[in-house]
Amino acid sequence: MKEIIPIGERVLIKPLKLEEMTKSGIYIPESAQEHRKEGSVIAVGCREDGSALPLKPGDHVIYGGYSADKVEVDGENYVFVPFKDILAKIE
Amino acid sequence: MKEIIPIGERVLIKPLKLEEMTKSGIYIPESAQEHRKEGSVIAVGCREDGSALPLKPGDHVIYGGYSADKVEVDGENYVFVPFKDILAKIE
Amino acid sequence: MKEIIPIGERVLIKPLKLEEMTKSGIYIPESAQEHRKEGSVIAVGCREDGSALPLKPGDHVIYGGYSADKVEVDGENYVFVPFKDILAKIE
Amino acid sequence: MKEIIPIGERVLIKPLKLEEMTKSGIYIPESAQEHRKEGSVIAVGCREDGSALPLKPGDHVIYGGYSADKVEVDGENYVFVPFKDILAKIE
Amino acid sequence: MKEIIPIGERVLIKPLKLEEMTKSGIYIPESAQEHRKEGSVIAVGCREDGSALPLKPGDHVIYGGYSADKVEVDGENYVFVPFKDILAKIE
Amino acid sequence: MKEIIPIGERVLIKPLKLEEMTKSGIYIPESAQEHRKEGSVIAVGCREDGSALPLKPGDHVIYGGYSADKVEVDGENYVFVPFKDILAKIE
Amino acid sequence: MKEIIPIGERVLIKPLKLEEMTKSGIYIPESAQEHRKEGSVIAVGCREDGSALPLKPGDHVIYGGYSADKVEVDGENYVFVPFKDILAKIE
Repeated sequence: MKEIIPIGERVLIKPLKLEEMTKSGIYIPESAQEHRKEGSVIAVGCREDGSALPLKPGDHVIYGGYSADKVEVDGENYVFVPFKDILAKIE
Repeated sequence: MKEIIPIGERVLIKPLKLEEMTKSGIYIPESAQEHRKEGSVIAVGCREDGSALPLKPGDHVIYGGYSADKVEVDGENYVFVPFKDILAKIE
Repeated sequence: MKEIIPIGERVLIKPLKLEEMTKSGIYIPESAQEHRKEGSVIAVGCREDGSALPLKPGDHVIYGGYSADKVEVDGENYVFVPFKDILAKIE
Repeated sequence: MKEIIPIGERVLIKPLKLEEMTKSGIYIPESAQEHRKEGSVIAVGCREDGSALPLKPGDHVIYGGYSADKVEVDGENYVFVPFKDILAKIE
Repeated sequence: MKEIIPIGERVLIKPLKLEEMTKSGIYIPESAQEHRKEGSVIAVGCREDGSALPLKPGDHVIYGGYSADKVEVDGENYVFVPFKDILAKIE
Repeated sequence: MKEIIPIGERVLIKPLKLEEMTKSGIYIPESAQEHRKEGSVIAVGCREDGSALPLKPGDHVIYGGYSADKVEVDGENYVFVPFKDILAKIE
Repeated sequence: MKEIIPIGERVLIKPLKLEEMTKSGIYIPESAQEHRKEGSVIAVGCREDGSALPLKPGDHVIYGGYSADKVEVDGENYVFVPFKDILAKIE
């Protein structure tokens, strides 16, 4: 896959598939699945002053918000999620 | 339970059940129960500059606001509450 | 009463009863009583940087605003009032 | 009269009576009298950092705005006016 | 005329009369005359930090905006204009 | 022409006539010509702290936005354009 | 082509043609193509304090947003894109 470097306070995420979500033990109410999801961090932008955001590739996250931008690379789906819409990291 | 680390100024809360609320001696008017509740702090995010929020796991809080995000982990219900919607700590 | 510690720029207030208000010599026009009241400060939060707000328990205040949150503790009524809605202190 | 200490960037003002206004030589168009008035400063709050506002008790001011809060103390009418709504000082 | 000292980032202006405007060689489209005008600066407020605004009494200005407050002093019309609505100085 | 000194982050611009625009090789889609235009900078205001804006009289610019204020001086048309609405300089 | 120097936090971009986009292996869902596109950076403005934006001419970017301004220079189409609407750089 080409390297995609998010610009600004954005995070590139690969959404988990339904069967992967079930394994995590976390359940997001069906009524909320439209705008809340689990995913895996692929790449992370940075703050305006160049400082790092507290996430790294491979992190397992729950994210929300309504302004994720979908993109498909080499047949796989990804989303750009504003950092402010990352709710939590799961370890 | 997996460790869930809230990102940003968010607090992960386990809402108190009705019978637990009654014991606390605090009564929230029924008309307000839709958006004001008691709960127990499970995990706390941090400010943008990395500094701590003045809450810790185990704190008993009253919280309000309309933007709490529900999540279910291992069959238990939790909510992500923006820190600004935490009204008070009860000791 | 349990100790209730307001979080953020909030003030916990015990509203004065009608007969107590009359004694203070201050009269709030009836048309405004819905959102302007006298009360006694019970507990005070703090600013985001941890510095104190210029009020202390026992202060007699006039407060306004539309976003006070009611709460009942051990049968008594209290309100959480955002600090910006405290109009004045009476001495 | 009890001492009333405005909190935050507020000014306690005693509105001038109609006959007092005429003497000042300043005339506010009738269509504007609903939200523009002359008055005498009674007490002054302060900025968030504790620094003084550039007004003092006794100042004769013109004020405007729509969010003045009326209050009656010992039978006299006063208003709390946000500092930003004080248009000018008359000397 | 009494001295009127504008408070905050406000400018007290004496609007030019129609015949005075024509002489300046500047023409404001009729459709815009409702909210754009020429005038002469009478008095100038200051910024919140006490620093001066870049205008002085006697300056000939074009001003716009919708929030000018009219006032009449000793039979003459004046307006309080927010500094941000002063478009230009004419020399 | 009288000297007109823009106040604040404003730029006084003389819009190019249609035949002048064609010569520049730049074409603005007809549907956008209502709010995007070429022009020549006549005079430039400054930032609040007194520092210069990165434009000078004579610059050829493309500007947009919806809040340009028209003014006619000695029979010629000019516009005051907020600096934030200057899209680019053409060299 | 004339030199076009974007003013402020803007980026001048040459949108990729459909056949060029396919080669990049990135696919933007058809429903989103109205406001999300690939392009090549032609020229970059700067921040208000004069510091550089983290992009340079030749960068291959994905951009979004609804406020891109189209312009045609010497028969070729370009857009001015606010920097905040650049989603990512592709390498």
